[in-house]
Amino acid sequence: MKKYVIGIDLGGTKISVASSDLAGNIIYKKTVPTNASEGENKILDRIISLVDDTLKKSNLTNEDILCIGIGSPGPLDTKKGTIITTPNLPFKNFDLVKPIKDRFNIHTVLDNDGNVAAIGEHEFGAGKGTRNMVFITVSTGIGGGAVLNGQIYRGNTSNALEIGHVTLEKDGVKCNCGNCGCVESLASGTAIARSATKAVEEAKSRGDKTSLYKYDNITSKEVFDEAKNGDKLALDVINKALNYLGIFIANIMNVFDPEVIIIGGGVSKAGSMVFDKIREIASKRSFTTIYENTKIVPAKLGGDAGIIGAVALAITEGKIFIK
Amino acid sequence: MKKYVIGIDLGGTKISVASSDLAGNIIYKKTVPTNASEGENKILDRIISLVDDTLKKSNLTNEDILCIGIGSPGPLDTKKGTIITTPNLPFKNFDLVKPIKDRFNIHTVLDNDGNVAAIGEHEFGAGKGTRNMVFITVSTGIGGGAVLNGQIYRGNTSNALEIGHVTLEKDGVKCNCGNCGCVESLASGTAIARSATKAVEEAKSRGDKTSLYKYDNITSKEVFDEAKNGDKLALDVINKALNYLGIFIANIMNVFDPEVIIIGGGVSKAGSMVFDKIREIASKRSFTTIYENTKIVPAKLGGDAGIIGAVALAITEGKIFIK
Repeated sequence: MKKYVIGIDLGGTKISVASSDLAGNIIYKKTVPTNASEGENKILDRIISLVDDTLKKSNLTNEDILCIGIGSPGPLDTKKGTIITTPNLPFKNFDLVKPIKDRFNIHTVLDNDGNVAAIGEHEFGAGKGTRNMVFITVSTGIGGGAVLNGQIYRGNTSNALEIGHVTLEKDGVKCNCGNCGCVESLASGTAIARSATKAVEEAKSRGDKTSLYKYDNITSKEVFDEAKNGDKLALDVINKALNYLGIFIANIMNVFDPEVIIIGGGVSKAGSMVFDKIREIASKRSFTTIYENTKIVPAKLGGDAGIIGAVALAITEGKIFIK
Repeated sequence: MKKYVIGIDLGGTKISVASSDLAGNIIYKKTVPTNASEGENKILDRIISLVDDTLKKSNLTNEDILCIGIGSPGPLDTKKGTIITTPNLPFKNFDLVKPIKDRFNIHTVLDNDGNVAAIGEHEFGAGKGTRNMVFITVSTGIGGGAVLNGQIYRGNTSNALEIGHVTLEKDGVKCNCGNCGCVESLASGTAIARSATKAVEEAKSRGDKTSLYKYDNITSKEVFDEAKNGDKLALDVINKALNYLGIFIANIMNVFDPEVIIIGGGVSKAGSMVFDKIREIASKRSFTTIYENTKIVPAKLGGDAGIIGAVALAITEGKIFIK
């Protein structure tokens, strides 16, 4: 009886591998640098030796493992098990699943980091026990995943929930994706930092005061910190971004009518300043019945979302596989 | 063996009831006025006698019927089988399912008209054979339904796909729902008629020409007709609305990554003028992989969408019930 799984969290700067039982209890976990510049085959070798090492350190053999779950930035082709391309990793149409599956003779699945985090929150986090939930991450970018009718929803080309690129301002600023006025370009951590930098320049030319002058390099964290200290310019920048984020969340509510919306990523760490504002906007912009029945809560898994999500992916897909 | 179903399409002006086999072949169909002003109990009596009549005319008894499916405007509580309230019908928290189920001793289900039309298109229309599809109706209002992972998606309170009230302009015109800048207030048939009426008044005050002067009461149909004839003012109004509709469809694509988006309702009848523009905008605003793999097509069921959808609801829910 196969009672264990392996999770792999592949990122631009680090790779984590963990073994776990089917209840999500981590047995052994190791994290190493990705060293992305060494190229795709070296990264694959590193992953394989990490899995080998994890099996040994956990006193397990491949016979004990139900499934290997891999979380990776996308876009991916999850049916083929390939990474199509991804900004911070050297993979181009790279078949990641087959060599791992062949090497260990274990059922192996790949999914994008938004879905993996959603599955993690659904199995072991803030979405536990729900049938319909949407996970949204707001950090340098905006992304997400959804569990609908009790199942992860991947869509036709496994690119569902590309929600960062939903248009909210038809004539808004240009986004990296080529479109303009995407929510990612209006309300992500990157967007907040960019708006603040621009606002500081304008304040300087007008001779206005702001506590943001003291930073050489403004990130969203500094903007939130100074807004909490009452700096008017920082507060204006934050409120504009959170207004868009609130509209975005209201739209997600009207589309999905979910039990819970889980918000993770750096921006969610600003706590009640973010959540109070989002709830205020969403209460005005969403259907009353939906608003009254949707919880808006912070993610529970935090920094471990990637590896716990990969383990959760392996558990859920493993159980489907042996059915 | 129960090899037949009954579909009921309840609307503000008429009620249709039909019997069908499990392949969706209509055996007998009858439509009568709703006479909404007579109140909820009279309407219920009328539905029951229509079902009675339909059974007799089809040479069927209640023993032959797998399921009765009812489509109704919402909001509903589909789990309880009640109509909460609805603009053009007198029902208030009215239990519609129980008296019909008790009278005929047949499994009976209720669903809102957006979902029912989506199920109809999925079973017998433009979405046949797809696993992930979104149906959107653009007429006096904007609504929809979605089949995801092969199942109708209703959400937590059975209000999913309240997509007409997705915000696209944060400072846009006030919508009937209380919010402002909803896509329904920017791109529905009603919105097109309202924008045209306003534009005609402004043109009059400036002394500009427009072929729309000849209409006492402008509806979206006249605006489309005159736009096709090359009237500049009509074309401006249509292009503004279709730009919003294109953004809306692109957003739906980025959220759902569906195989097909099916567009029904009066506005979709303007044909290639609508579809070409939507595709042009969506190609710029949605993810390339998603756009290349999503068909955008007109609905197939047309004026019969309500009753065929109700039959399709009865077939799909009946099959789940006997499992």
